[in-house]
Formats: sequence, C-alpha cells, structure tokens
Amino acid sequence: MNNFIFKNPTKIIFGKDTEHSVGNETKIFSNKILLHYGGGSIKRSGLYDRVKKSLDEAGIEVFELSGVLPNPRLSLVQKGIRICRDNGINFILAVGGGSVIDSSKTIAAGVPYKGNVWDFFSGKAAPTESLPVGVVLTIPAAGSESSNSAVITNEDGWFKKGLTNDHLYPVFAIMNPELTFTLPDYQTICGASDIMAHIMERYFTNTKDVEFTDRLCEATLKTIIDNVPRALKNPADYAARAEIMWAGTIAHNNLLSTGRVGDWGSHAIEHELSAIYDIAHGAGLAIVFPAWMKYVYKHDIKRFAQFAHRVWNVEYNVFNIEETALKGISALESYYASIGLPVRLSQANIDEAHLEEMADKCTGSGTYTVGNFMKLDREDVFNIYKLAL
Amino acid sequence: MNNFIFKNPTKIIFGKDTEHSVGNETKIFSNKILLHYGGGSIKRSGLYDRVKKSLDEAGIEVFELSGVLPNPRLSLVQKGIRICRDNGINFILAVGGGSVIDSSKTIAAGVPYKGNVWDFFSGKAAPTESLPVGVVLTIPAAGSESSNSAVITNEDGWFKKGLTNDHLYPVFAIMNPELTFTLPDYQTICGASDIMAHIMERYFTNTKDVEFTDRLCEATLKTIIDNVPRALKNPADYAARAEIMWAGTIAHNNLLSTGRVGDWGSHAIEHELSAIYDIAHGAGLAIVFPAWMKYVYKHDIKRFAQFAHRVWNVEYNVFNIEETALKGISALESYYASIGLPVRLSQANIDEAHLEEMADKCTGSGTYTVGNFMKLDREDVFNIYKLAL
Repeated sequence: MNNFIFKNPTKIIFGKDTEHSVGNETKIFSNKILLHYGGGSIKRSGLYDRVKKSLDEAGIEVFELSGVLPNPRLSLVQKGIRICRDNGINFILAVGGGSVIDSSKTIAAGVPYKGNVWDFFSGKAAPTESLPVGVVLTIPAAGSESSNSAVITNEDGWFKKGLTNDHLYPVFAIMNPELTFTLPDYQTICGASDIMAHIMERYFTNTKDVEFTDRLCEATLKTIIDNVPRALKNPADYAARAEIMWAGTIAHNNLLSTGRVGDWGSHAIEHELSAIYDIAHGAGLAIVFPAWMKYVYKHDIKRFAQFAHRVWNVEYNVFNIEETALKGISALESYYASIGLPVRLSQANIDEAHLEEMADKCTGSGTYTVGNFMKLDREDVFNIYKLAL
Repeated sequence: MNNFIFKNPTKIIFGKDTEHSVGNETKIFSNKILLHYGGGSIKRSGLYDRVKKSLDEAGIEVFELSGVLPNPRLSLVQKGIRICRDNGINFILAVGGGSVIDSSKTIAAGVPYKGNVWDFFSGKAAPTESLPVGVVLTIPAAGSESSNSAVITNEDGWFKKGLTNDHLYPVFAIMNPELTFTLPDYQTICGASDIMAHIMERYFTNTKDVEFTDRLCEATLKTIIDNVPRALKNPADYAARAEIMWAGTIAHNNLLSTGRVGDWGSHAIEHELSAIYDIAHGAGLAIVFPAWMKYVYKHDIKRFAQFAHRVWNVEYNVFNIEETALKGISALESYYASIGLPVRLSQANIDEAHLEEMADKCTGSGTYTVGNFMKLDREDVFNIYKLAL
C-alpha cells in the first residue's frame, strides 16, 4: 500500500424527495447563482420546477444556462464564465448528470482565472481556486458529483481532455434515486458501464498489498452487476436505483484509490472514440475494456484471476489460472452484452477509418504512453482499437 | 435503503513517516495547542520526540496533558478544559489511541461550553461548537480518528457513556502503520475486536435493501480477519498493519452506516462490563458479541446466514439456513479464540456477582431498552450476560 492523503469534502444528501432541500443547501454559499443544465428532460420531469421553487423559497437570485450536451463543450463553458463574471455570480448549481457537472466545475474554476480555462486541460496551468459547485444528480454514471475531476471537449480539433484538481470537489450533492426512474434504458446501461469502468481502472494496479481496497472495489462492482438488471426489469425499483446511485458515487470519490495507483488507460483510449464519433462514453468503455483486458492480462494473470473469481464467481482453477483469468474477461463481456451494451466497434458502426488518427491523438503522436498497469504506446493503443473492431 | 446525509470532513494522512507532517497540519489551525496523550509509550518509542520536533519547527506553542487511561476519565477531561481556558488554547492534538482521542474530543467540546461537559453524555445538552482536534493515531481500534463519537467514564458512579455529534469529527488524522509495530499482541487483538464490532453493529440491521453497504461491511470485516493473524505472526509486517489501520478507520467513519440503522446493543452491554471491571473494551466485545448473536439470531436467520456465508466462507445450506447461521456465529467465536481473545466472562475472571447490577445500569433499571436489531430490555441484557458466563 502506498502512502496517501484522502479527504472528500462533498456533503451527500441522499434519498427520496431530497431535491426539496436544494434551496437551503445553496443558501449556505450564495444568494446569486448560475443554474446550469442540459435540455428539456428536467423540465418534462418536473424537476426543474421543484428546484426553482426551492431556490425561490430560499430567496436566491437565479441566472440560467442550459444546453449542455453529452461530452460537454468548451464553448458553452466559456459562455458560462462570461455570464458569471458579468453578473457577479459566485455559485454554480449543476442539475443533471456528469456532463452538466463537469461543465459546471469548469465554469467554476474558470471564473476566477485570468487566462483561457482550456489551459487547465492542456496542462498549461492548474486551478488554485474555484467557485463552489452544488449538484442535483439525475444520472448515476460519471461520479462527478463527489469527484475532483472533469472532462471537457474542445470543438477546435475535437480534443477531449480531463482535469483532476481538489478544487473541483462539489460542496454538496443531492441524490434522489427516484429521479432516475425515467432514464432511458440506454442511459442506465451506459451509466453502469461508466461506473464499472471507474472501479476497474482503480482495480487493475501494480501496487502491492492492497487487499482492503481490492475488496472494496469488488463489493462496489458486485453491487452494480446485481442491480442493473433489476433496474432494467423494473425502472421504478427504488432499491435497485438507490444501490446503483450510491455505488456509482463511491466508485469515483477516490476512496477506492487510496494507497494504490490506478490505470486509466481505457479511459484515455475511449476518450478518442467519443471525441470523434460522439458515442456515449459508457458505450465506448464497454467496447474498449474487454479489448484492453485481452491485450494486457498476461501482465498480471493472478490479478485477473482474482477479478474472475471474486467478482464473477468463476471457480478458481489453481492448475490453470490463465483459464480462470480469461473466464473473468469473458464474463464481463457477456454481462455487458446481456444488459444491451455494444462490445465491439462494429456494433457502434465504427470501422477502421480513424483508428490510426485516434491512436495518434491518444498518445500525442507517440510522444507519450497511456495507462499505468501497462504503459501503452501508440502501437499498443492501435492494437487495442483493432482488437475491439 | 433509508435516506441519509453523509459528510466526513477528516483529512486522512496515511503512510510511512507521516507523523513528521504534524506541525504543518496543525499550524493551519493554531499556533497554541494542548498536546494530549497517555503514558510513557509514546516517549519510549520516540514518537513524542518526533511530534514535538515537528511542532517546534512549525513554531507552535505546546501545552501538555498526559495521563489518559483506557476508558478515559471525566476528571482528566475537566483538567484539560481548565488548561485550555486558562491559557487561551484553541486546538487539541491527540497522540495515541481511542481513549486519548475521545478525551481530546471531549475537552474540545467542553472548552466553549458554559455548563458541565458531562451534560453532553447524560443527554442534558448537545455540543453546538468545538475546538478543532487533530490526531496522530497509534492504535487501530476505536475508529475515533475519523468518527463523530466519543466515550467517557465518569468515576462518580463509574458510568461509561457515549456521545455522537458532528462537531466531534477530527480535522485531520495522521496514520503511520509503522507506529503499530510495537503494540503488545493483546492491544492488537483487542483493537481488532473493537473494529470488527464496529462493523457488526452496523451489519445487523432491520433496514431492507442495503446490499451495497452489506458488501462494504463484509469487505472490511474480511480484511481485518485476514490480516490480524499476519500482524501477530510478524509484528513488523507493514502490509498487514496498514490494511488493519485503514480498515479500522473505514469501519467507524460512518460510510458503512449510510442508509441503514445500526444495532449498538452489544456496545451498550459491553460498556457496563468495562466500566465496572475496567477490562479492555475489545476483550469485553469478544465476550459479549457471540452471546448477543446466540440470543438474537432467530430474529433474522437469513441475515446471519449471509454473514456466515459471505464473511466466514460457510457453505450456504439452502435446506437448513439455521445451521448455516449458527456455523457463522461459531466461526466468529473460534476466530476470536484463535487470535487469543477471551470469549467467556469466566476467561476474564468475571463471575455472576455484578450481572444484575450491570443489567440495571445498561437499561436505566429497566426504564429503556438497548439495541435496534432487537430491542433488548433489562431481562434480555441479563440473559445475554448469563449466556456469556
């Protein structure tokens, strides 16, 4: 186990009807806010009205910016920064899923920064302060509601980049599982894939002596695996929705990374996919992860065998642990398929056309590697895309 | 799953040599502090010198109060409060285990309070503010380093009472597993018993649909169960000590309680034991828990069978789940015995003499019940003591 520092400051307000507390929670920080959201779904569901009512009752002045798209765009972030500066706004309330939250975090970090906020993503600068961000979560997926990271897409070249910085932790996250009853199945399964990926990126590590966090990862993964089919069968199954939502937060709040180095190669490889093709991040991850596993498992067969045995209940064959390991990868792929996720690029109508380009972008044209479990160079990344065809 | 609010503000600084950062971490809060500790062990180990050096280098003025005993006493707390008030001290640094931390938290809550600090424990008042408390942890056991609770013994009648209040979360906890290499075996096993009890108090619940937190509890328990024998075999096994220390914190930082109601009957029953006999809390819990389980398991045989199967690897007998459940209780008892803990009152040289008196004190002479899994009245508590003889 490595040395670590862990402090997650996000206040979680979890359960039925909790969105009614948003006004009181927000008032602690500000009485003039930017309400940031996506499109019409929160209006159709009535959530927008409930949030506005709670904010009104708390006497909070609300400016609005809607229009966040999946794979949130830099241009909208820059618009949000201008609105905040022009109006002296000092709090961002994100109502939505990961894209809305990431867009909100980036606006919040950008407002007090004198340069171009993209500097944070290109590595030219790091945030040293941020406006506080509050969240009303509608999609369990990105884990951004209690994480210190954000991902933004720059339309100028379609670069999709991530930023990790402790100023990005939201100050509160309101999580009502009932808000997820009306999610289309495809969003439920893409969210599940994203959550599972967050856990597996942490699970596949070279750090030794990480039994406790291994077990916490396995517990969180098994919870998702068990509950997603229940939620698909009965979208209003509160128990299943609640398990998925809470596990989705813990998957990415950094508890599961304590004392260990995560991989994050599959995320980098997927980001190029969804930057070019604009497919759902979770669908991209379901395609990339099995291919990544098949490419790297020999690097630590025992770890993959443990994954197979403890997460997927594969009987441990002590005489052939490679067989055990491969059964685990196969079980993951079968599970993805069983809940309706694509597991091949072809199933997402993606062919060989851009594989070279994506491998280039993913590795700075071969100037750096991605991933920590195995350092993957441009050729490795290209091979993984090929394996995923 | 019940609605819940979760926010744990303690900053964890974990790993080798981390005690050297205590000066810098403390300086964020204060330059005049009370250093609170037990006896000579931190002086013999050299920890006291390292902590003092770090505080000196940070330019912090240090007042000292030593002499904290296991089952920390109200009289010393009151002395600490006077020292803080007389000298304008506004930060308490606890260097030690749960007793030192609980004593520190109580001093910290008592300084700004005009009445008698025992009011917080007798239920007459609740803290509305507190001085910040920092921790350098030396014993993985109580979980107090990142919890919102404290337990104090009032020598006037030997009442041992607990207090839970969000003002009691420490602001930081420095945790170096190397500091636990020199623990006597008895402290290692009593600490393990306390940690296991914190998990089991949360695990045995009537709240439905708690799969995720069940699995997190099981993961944490299994980590302790695996690593304690390793630490006993090789006291300087860093990996084992680190797993125990981090799992011990998570066991009691309230993550494992999210969305569920814990029991806490066994803690109440044990507190009377250690208040009268002054035996180690962990030893008392190893005696009480198996007796409690034998008394209550029929209330939810399935939950006990899950405990047996998932935590103790008992094969699930679908045709006789009571047998499965009983094998789990037996496995817990055998495990305690295997690491050297007493599992009967007689092994701690406690006879029937005070059972009636303890059952009275535990239940306010029968005016209230203890525990939530099953509400236990005076007669139940007495029966559990008898079962433990």
